[in-house]
Amino acid sequence: MPRYALKLEYDGTPFAGWQRQADQPSVQGAVEAALARLETGVPSIAAAGRTDAGVHALGQVAHCDLARDWDPFRLSEALNYHLKPAPVAVLAAARVGEDFHARFSAVERRYLFRLVSRRAPMTHQRGLVWRVPHPLALAPMQEAARHLTGRHDFTTFRASICQAASPVKTLDALEIEEVSFPGGAEFRFSVRARSFLHNQVRSFVGTLERVGAGAWAPGDVKTALEARDRAACGPVCPPDGLYLESVGYPEDPFA
Amino acid sequence: MPRYALKLEYDGTPFAGWQRQADQPSVQGAVEAALARLETGVPSIAAAGRTDAGVHALGQVAHCDLARDWDPFRLSEALNYHLKPAPVAVLAAARVGEDFHARFSAVERRYLFRLVSRRAPMTHQRGLVWRVPHPLALAPMQEAARHLTGRHDFTTFRASICQAASPVKTLDALEIEEVSFPGGAEFRFSVRARSFLHNQVRSFVGTLERVGAGAWAPGDVKTALEARDRAACGPVCPPDGLYLESVGYPEDPFA
Repeated sequence: MPRYALKLEYDGTPFAGWQRQADQPSVQGAVEAALARLETGVPSIAAAGRTDAGVHALGQVAHCDLARDWDPFRLSEALNYHLKPAPVAVLAAARVGEDFHARFSAVERRYLFRLVSRRAPMTHQRGLVWRVPHPLALAPMQEAARHLTGRHDFTTFRASICQAASPVKTLDALEIEEVSFPGGAEFRFSVRARSFLHNQVRSFVGTLERVGAGAWAPGDVKTALEARDRAACGPVCPPDGLYLESVGYPEDPFA
Repeated sequence: MPRYALKLEYDGTPFAGWQRQADQPSVQGAVEAALARLETGVPSIAAAGRTDAGVHALGQVAHCDLARDWDPFRLSEALNYHLKPAPVAVLAAARVGEDFHARFSAVERRYLFRLVSRRAPMTHQRGLVWRVPHPLALAPMQEAARHLTGRHDFTTFRASICQAASPVKTLDALEIEEVSFPGGAEFRFSVRARSFLHNQVRSFVGTLERVGAGAWAPGDVKTALEARDRAACGPVCPPDGLYLESVGYPEDPFA
């Protein structure tokens, strides 16, 4: 069966997450339903990151096995047609070798987190950013973030239900950029690693927000990391601002 | 009665437009309902631009008359509290003189139109941009736009139901900026005038899109303008990408 890689964008708001569920809408379920309109008996699909409920994607990657030989452009057009009206779009499709696995072949994941500080509630960006009503200071958050990069035991920043074999991971980057606008500012967290623990990015951002608000000192984040204790973590932030931005492979299947 | 100016942001998607309607949700109705939670007998409010169904605002201005003396910050906070869950936010409130009128005192309106060219349907930006699946060329659209700026009889670009006294208006600016992204581009139209005819911006953008797509030559827009005939207009584009960006007054009430 020819294998195809799909680059997917989605609004996670209406979904219970990536993973197919018996009685709730899921992104996997939406894509598999669209595939079922093209061929019968399509096997279950796999994705690079199993995003949680409400988490978005700009460049999720999944793979599927089809019986027919599809032109990749025609495949993406047909899937987008059948995905309507779900807020899921196939940005690109590519024929890949049968040794390609969206999850196990991935060597890098990048996440973006959008945190907005302003008094007024969000309108157009509702569900797409995490808003806090108070000001945040960039420099202390950046200082605290430096304690988190590198190879560490991230037990503090790991959900209790995390199924990873080890809490030791290497965080390649955690950069924060501030974009000011009249009446507030957006803080864009760019996070990069080979792989992540469950809730790791939301645990980072929830904790760093406390630093930006002045409730924690930057050094408190180092102390929390070194505690290797889930109870030492700051509050886990909501999923609204989290985007799986891109997935890296030894060879880009979409190049 | 003390008068207050309100700067409003809203997602127009769920509304039948600004104007209050007997049986459909409107932005005016949402704001008036929130005001009614603060005081009884608040008079009907007026806005600078009566946006159509599906049209958004980043900086609509309205004024209201209240019986009590409100601290402007407390007023905006109270209104935002009562506006939930409608996607309408008060960005600022200010005490103004009784000669201030949100509509009649305005000397400038700026609109933004967001047109996206990409194959894949929108997900996060659904309802917030107008998407076309084909490529668009910036330079011909810019050339055509130059024919529209200045003082003209805009009968061609005016809805038949327009109630303005005269079709002659001065268009101060129509600038188009292209922002490329992988797989497509966004074209941001910035339009500025003292006042507009009904559907004027959507008539401009719908016509200029035809130029960008190569179906019209830039000079055809000049011919259409000079025809002073509604039938000479290109297709009126959907409201999705249109935002009332800001309203100018001789003195900024929110400064």
